[in-house]
Order: sequence, then C-alpha cells, then structure tokens
Amino acid sequence: MAKKPDNSRMTDSSPSTNAVGRRHPGHCGPRLPYSMVTILAAIAAIVPLSSVAQGEKPMISIAIHGGAGVINRDVMSTADEQAYLADLGRALDAGYEVLDSGGAALDAVTAAVRILEDSPQFNAGRGAVFNHEGINELDASIMDGRQLRAGAVAGVRHVRNPIELARLVMDRSPHVLLAGAGAEEFAREQGVELVPSEYFYTKLRWRQLEKARGGGKFNAAEIGYFGTVGAVALDRAGDLAAATSTGGTTNKRYGRIGDSPIIGAGNFADNDSCAVSATGSGEYFIRTVLGHEISSLMKYRGLSAEAAAREAIHGTLERIGGKGGVIVVDRAGNIALEFNSGGMFRGARDSKGRREILIY
Amino acid sequence: MAKKPDNSRMTDSSPSTNAVGRRHPGHCGPRLPYSMVTILAAIAAIVPLSSVAQGEKPMISIAIHGGAGVINRDVMSTADEQAYLADLGRALDAGYEVLDSGGAALDAVTAAVRILEDSPQFNAGRGAVFNHEGINELDASIMDGRQLRAGAVAGVRHVRNPIELARLVMDRSPHVLLAGAGAEEFAREQGVELVPSEYFYTKLRWRQLEKARGGGKFNAAEIGYFGTVGAVALDRAGDLAAATSTGGTTNKRYGRIGDSPIIGAGNFADNDSCAVSATGSGEYFIRTVLGHEISSLMKYRGLSAEAAAREAIHGTLERIGGKGGVIVVDRAGNIALEFNSGGMFRGARDSKGRREILIY
Repeated sequence: MAKKPDNSRMTDSSPSTNAVGRRHPGHCGPRLPYSMVTILAAIAAIVPLSSVAQGEKPMISIAIHGGAGVINRDVMSTADEQAYLADLGRALDAGYEVLDSGGAALDAVTAAVRILEDSPQFNAGRGAVFNHEGINELDASIMDGRQLRAGAVAGVRHVRNPIELARLVMDRSPHVLLAGAGAEEFAREQGVELVPSEYFYTKLRWRQLEKARGGGKFNAAEIGYFGTVGAVALDRAGDLAAATSTGGTTNKRYGRIGDSPIIGAGNFADNDSCAVSATGSGEYFIRTVLGHEISSLMKYRGLSAEAAAREAIHGTLERIGGKGGVIVVDRAGNIALEFNSGGMFRGARDSKGRREILIY
Repeated sequence: MAKKPDNSRMTDSSPSTNAVGRRHPGHCGPRLPYSMVTILAAIAAIVPLSSVAQGEKPMISIAIHGGAGVINRDVMSTADEQAYLADLGRALDAGYEVLDSGGAALDAVTAAVRILEDSPQFNAGRGAVFNHEGINELDASIMDGRQLRAGAVAGVRHVRNPIELARLVMDRSPHVLLAGAGAEEFAREQGVELVPSEYFYTKLRWRQLEKARGGGKFNAAEIGYFGTVGAVALDRAGDLAAATSTGGTTNKRYGRIGDSPIIGAGNFADNDSCAVSATGSGEYFIRTVLGHEISSLMKYRGLSAEAAAREAIHGTLERIGGKGGVIVVDRAGNIALEFNSGGMFRGARDSKGRREILIY
C-alpha cells in the first residue's frame, strides 16, 4: 500500500507548469483581445483555489503517534530511542508517500498504522500488551472525514492488523463497532488471515504483565507509557482521515474497552473540521469525548487546530484529571501535536517541507 | 428507589415561606437602619438565584423514551397502546418522584430505566430482541453530569438490569466500558445476581427474529421500531444525568455494538450543557457523536436545548441518512423531545406542572 513517491508528478509541481498562467521565457505571444482576457479572468475566478490550475498542488499533511505517557529520557537507552525513531520514521514516510502519489488519506493512515502495528515496540498489533489473563486483546478504529463513515473493532485476539479489520467493518458492513469473537467471525468471512496468539508474544510485554500482576493493582504509570498508535492525514482531494490502534492497558480485566475504538473519543474525522487520534488514559478521553470535542471547538467556537487541541488537552481533559495526547490535522493541512504527559512518540510531515519525529 | 413524593416539602414551596423576604400580613415591624438594609441587600445579592431562599424550589425535570422508529397508528391495537402508555407513565412518575423527594438525577434516571427494562414491551432488559444466534445481548450506559463520570456495559447476556451494572462500573471501577463475559465477571464480583437466558425470552421478540431471519437480511424498518429506552433528568441540586439501555437490533451479528453504551453517541451528560439519551439507527448516532454534538451546539454555539436537538436530528443526523430521536434536558430544566422517525415512545414531566406521554 505504501507506494513509491510519484516523482514525475513531484516534478510537475514546479511553478513553471502553471497551466493557466504559463510563461515561456523569451517567447512573447501576440497581445490578447480584451474579451479573451475577460474569459481567462473568468476561468481564473472559477478555479481560484484550485492549486493545480495555479501550478501548486494542494497541501498534504500527515501526523502519527506511538503512544504518550511517562517517557523517561534518562532511562531510555540510545539503542531503544533509535529503534523507536526509526519505526516512527518508516510509518510517517509510508503514509506521506501514499499522499504524495495522489493516494487517499484513508490509505495513508492505514499504511502508517499498519507499520506501527507490525513493529514489536508499540502497544498495538504485534507489540500489544497482555491483559490480566495473559491474552492480547486488540482494539482499532478508522474514520473517513467525507461522509463521517467509520469502522472499529474491540477485543480481537487473532487479527494481525486490527486497523485493516476496522477498515473492512467500515467498507463492507452496515455496522461501526464489532467486538470479540463476533468481530473475528466477520474477519474470517472477509477472508482476513487470523494468526495464532503466539504472534503477539513479546518478552517486554510479558515482563510488564508480571510486574503489573505483582503490584496487585493496575497502575498506568508503572508500565512506562500509555500505549496506542495512530495517524491523521489530509490528502490532495482535501479529505481527512484518522486511524487508531491499541493493545489497551497491561493487566486489563473485565473486557475493558478503552477510547481507541470509540468514535468521537480516541478517533474522529470530519472534513468540516479536522482528523484526530488520541492516546492516554482512555477512560478520560471517553468521558470528555475528546476527539469530537476538538472538532466542535473548531467548528462551533472557531478555534484553530492548535488552539482547539490545547484547550481540549489542558482544559477539558485536565479538568477531570486525564493524561495523554492528541494529533490533529485540519482541512488546511495544519498539524497540532499536543500532550500533557511526560512525552509522546510523534511525527509530522507535510508538503511544505516539514518533517519531524520527536519523543519528549 | 422510587420513593413517594415528599408532600410536606411540596407544601413548603408556597411563596409564603420565602425566608428572606418573609412578610407577616398586618404586622408592621420597626424600620430597619440603613446599614441593616445594606446587609440584607448584600445577602440577597449573594443568593439571588437560590430559589430556596426565595421560597421556590429549584426546577426539576425528567424525560424518558422507549424507542423511536416506524410506529404505525393504524396497526397498533388500543390494548397495546394503553400498555405502552401505562409503562411509560410508571417509569416517568417513578423517576419524577425520586427528584421530587430531593433525590439525585442519577437515581431518578436509574429508577425510570429499570422500570422500562423490567417491562417486556420495550427492547431493553426483559423485552430485549434476539441476536442472530437467538441470544439476547444487552448494552447500557449511564452518565453523571457533575464530573463527566460514566459507566457502560456491552454485550451482557445474564444481567437483569444492565443499567444497574453500568452504574456499578461507574461507581466501583476505574473503567467506563466493560464488554461481554468480562463485564459479567465484574457483575458477579459486585454481587449482581445473574439470571438465566430464559428470563429474556418473549414470544414477540422470537417471532421478530424468525421474521428477520426469514427475510435473509437485517432490515430495521421490518421489525416495527428501533429499540432502546432512556431517561434524562435535572435534580434540585442542579445536577444532570442520562441513562440508556437496549437489546440492540433484532438478528444482529458479529458482536455488533450500537450507540447506547457509547458515551457521547447514545448517552451523554454534562452539567455545563445538558443530558441526552438517544434511540434510532445506532451506527449513525455513533458516526455523528450525536449526544456530544447536542452538548457542543449548546455550549459553543449558544443554542437552546430545543434548537440544538432540532439541528442535531434534522441537520447533523439527517445529512448522513440517520433516523431516530433524542430526549434532552438542560440545566434550567427545559426539555426537548426531537425525532425524525414516524414516532417515539416518550414522556416528560417537570415541577412546573407539565406531564405528558406520547407515542406518535
């Protein structure tokens, strides 16, 4: 899915290819009659914001996260840090390349999240944490900003890439949220290959479970950082999309579902406002409906993506004691990366040349 | 829980008991010195809106619903109609009596929803519809407008009153949403009595399943009306609460979860805006995050409860093809009952003397 960048089209984006206002240096054409000028002006007026006509492609943007929480710079080894940065970079660039070759935001966020799910380092897919019974239970959701289409799965145990199953729920079922064994039955019917539970075994996560069990009681801070990965993107067509995937919390019990598969909480996209993916203390994101809160602050209070993300994290979420972060992209391609935890694995890239990957 | 109305306190609410401005007709006291007048004026300024001080109790309001959808007046028998109205009336009054005796909005909505869950006529609790496998899977959620506290359960099969389990999740767990067998494990640990699945068997629902199965394919309109029951309330302390409970959709598959247990979609409460409970085509309510949308329209666009409910149902929801209704109460006690389906079983009662129960 992560196609190579379409370099021919990248070359096309140079100002010299402006189709309407094209100039051939050294060539001086005949003076146009007034009526022709009027017609050209009218055409220009009809497509004033069509950047293609202006020789500039529309803005594309993508942001990703790999979880937020207590990330201690002193404790993390340089090797670990490099490994995190490398996988975040691969995911960011894979998503960006989809957008840059003219692909859809939906495909871009799927490509980015799949790479983070396949990495054993993040709490999603392959690297998911263990629940109280020593089982990996995965949640994911995806949303298409065009028609508020959405798909999500909760508590699946044998799906390699839950984000792809969420996408199938959106594309091929009348439902939004499927849970547990029923969701896996749907997966089988859709021809999704199920993997044995051993696929999700990693030593690090097992040690974290043992530690959490030893502590007797669940404590998010104990396990290093909150999990969850996510991506938000704006494509050339002006469409927004958001994707989020998680293993939930180490030692979780009772079929607990967090915010990641909850549309409006951990994941939301609306072409009229923004795309959001969240990570943190999930229950607080559900109670504040934080993804939709950011969208509402933009839509109804006129805040920018950055101001809305700041208000939501440091206002709405913090007022009830919530911790975590969000990534946001708006329909103009502006990116906001906001958190109130010690750090957030995150990356941002856009067609204006921004490319950054950060942890602290 | 549904206490008798506290009539002595109702008598207390007559204007003659105004503690600050009390007047004894025929008695003319000594003229107060200026400084005393100032002090009294200052006290009055401090508690100008405290209705207790003015001899009027604060407004209390409750609204309930028992599902929205295609409700055909010509097809429904008078006996059925009377039975629906009777149970709606019992639920409405039970909730109102909790409020009127000074109880909390949370207790009022729990009391109202429990009665609707116990009635075999509504698609929640006892009268829940069957899923594709012929099993009843119940969802419910509750929210406290004070601190945005919330609890929810999804896909439970042996819980007589899912709304009470949702309340326990809110009150006694760090979680918001528990699903399936895990939620029932939590129920057992909390001493909740589990009932055998036969408790949920009703002839009507079984026939509806057979009809739906026969049709080969799920069709919401076919089964008469969308399920779900709910209640929203404002208590004397000015606190809002919302509760929603459902059996989901007849013949549902794949562990489908609708909007009822999703905070922000089918259920939401925030003391700063309103309490909402929804019923209808659940997937559309999830995608539009409709409960939180109504709250946002009030909070950030300054709409009234009625205008926000109208905009959300006939604007936001209808734009993507969704059908159903909402009940809303705001912090001033205003009630909105809005739907775009053929009808909605609904009731409203407040301390200004309004009491109505409607179907069409």
